[in-house]
Amino acid sequence: MTTGIPPVEIERPDAAGRFIFVCEHASNAFPARWGDLGLGPEARGAHIAWDPGALGLARALAGALDGPLVAATASRLIYDLNRPPHAPGAMPARSETYDIPGNAAITTEDRLARTEALYLPFHEALGGLIAQRLARGLAPVLVTVHSFTPVWFGQPRAVELGVIHDADPRLAQALVAEARGALTLDTRLNEPYSAADGVTHTLARHATPMALPHAMIELRNDLIATQAQQADIAAQLAPCLIAALARIETREAA
Amino acid sequence: MTTGIPPVEIERPDAAGRFIFVCEHASNAFPARWGDLGLGPEARGAHIAWDPGALGLARALAGALDGPLVAATASRLIYDLNRPPHAPGAMPARSETYDIPGNAAITTEDRLARTEALYLPFHEALGGLIAQRLARGLAPVLVTVHSFTPVWFGQPRAVELGVIHDADPRLAQALVAEARGALTLDTRLNEPYSAADGVTHTLARHATPMALPHAMIELRNDLIATQAQQADIAAQLAPCLIAALARIETREAA
Repeated sequence: MTTGIPPVEIERPDAAGRFIFVCEHASNAFPARWGDLGLGPEARGAHIAWDPGALGLARALAGALDGPLVAATASRLIYDLNRPPHAPGAMPARSETYDIPGNAAITTEDRLARTEALYLPFHEALGGLIAQRLARGLAPVLVTVHSFTPVWFGQPRAVELGVIHDADPRLAQALVAEARGALTLDTRLNEPYSAADGVTHTLARHATPMALPHAMIELRNDLIATQAQQADIAAQLAPCLIAALARIETREAA
Repeated sequence: MTTGIPPVEIERPDAAGRFIFVCEHASNAFPARWGDLGLGPEARGAHIAWDPGALGLARALAGALDGPLVAATASRLIYDLNRPPHAPGAMPARSETYDIPGNAAITTEDRLARTEALYLPFHEALGGLIAQRLARGLAPVLVTVHSFTPVWFGQPRAVELGVIHDADPRLAQALVAEARGALTLDTRLNEPYSAADGVTHTLARHATPMALPHAMIELRNDLIATQAQQADIAAQLAPCLIAALARIETREAA
């Protein structure tokens, strides 16, 4: 590795809880190896570069539920870890209203180098963590943590909490039901986007083939802008996650 | 690694063709690290330990279609690479009419050690090969190659060629149609078993999340017992695979 940073960060790998948290868009770092892709500081700090607040929320949830956390260490504009290597969005030439000059004329060699340096180590680390827990007889639950921008292409978004699923909808549906019952957040299933938009790659790679209960949590980023907000939302969501899992497992056992 | 053999064999990694062949049950080797699991030579040579003929068939297909081949190096009774670590069939205590003493009282530590020594390197190697090809702009097609026993629990099986799919049935359906048109083999879709039996783990991990065309080929093992038979069946199947892929891609383009 010559990026100057590790390709993936694993916190609390030996945590005893069943929930594994993933934050593919945790970072807006632009390591020297890749440069700034021709972007100025405003673009590098914007939601196109990362999911603001998502790492803090994921850390607070992992702490509350005693789970490991697997997080990205570089901007999604260098490699969006929630996309396969052939997806245009993996190294996008344009994101919302921004052009990404360093991705516009990307070479095959650079595409391969970013895949090997960032995508493969991240997914091997997550896959290894899950396989080891399965071999030990645990029953992992996979939760990816994201944030979305309140205004997209000029349009405000009313949804505050989105819960998205890949092939198995059970945990996501149960989490929406719990959140609607217990919280004041405007909570919606498969909004602001869904698996059909290609946003469940991590779940499709790691949860669906193992039949793991799973959900992708999306918070509107104005609600998790500060550490205090992140802690508050995590404190609200953690009991909903526990209740949602109990709900689907009680139903199975009945 | 202290198994004395590499955990995975990759042949022709730089082959230019689109088809990637996988043989999870290629070997009936019992490396010293794991021992013979309490089995005698008859059981260690039987279909419960490996898929007889499958490696030769996969090699002949990879040669005919200029594709890479990813193959197991140890018996499926030590770790069945087409099963996740928590599946009872990954390290089975019983297989068809045979008890497997070395798996009957397997410890958590041994289950974890086999997962780390065999399952993870195999799937990381295959995942890396696919990701690299996707990053380079190729369009891989994933074909797993298996064989099945002509007599199972005392019942003869009439099917000679089975073609099985995971989520996307297109290539498998097209291959069945081509084989029925061109060959004299008794060819059936999703026989002698299907994804519902948990036999498509490799496809679910590596083809479905990447939307790769895919199929699992199952030959009745009496038809591929010799190298000459393997070469003959491969020479028949290779043009069917090419025609099947063309059929689904022409349909898409139309």
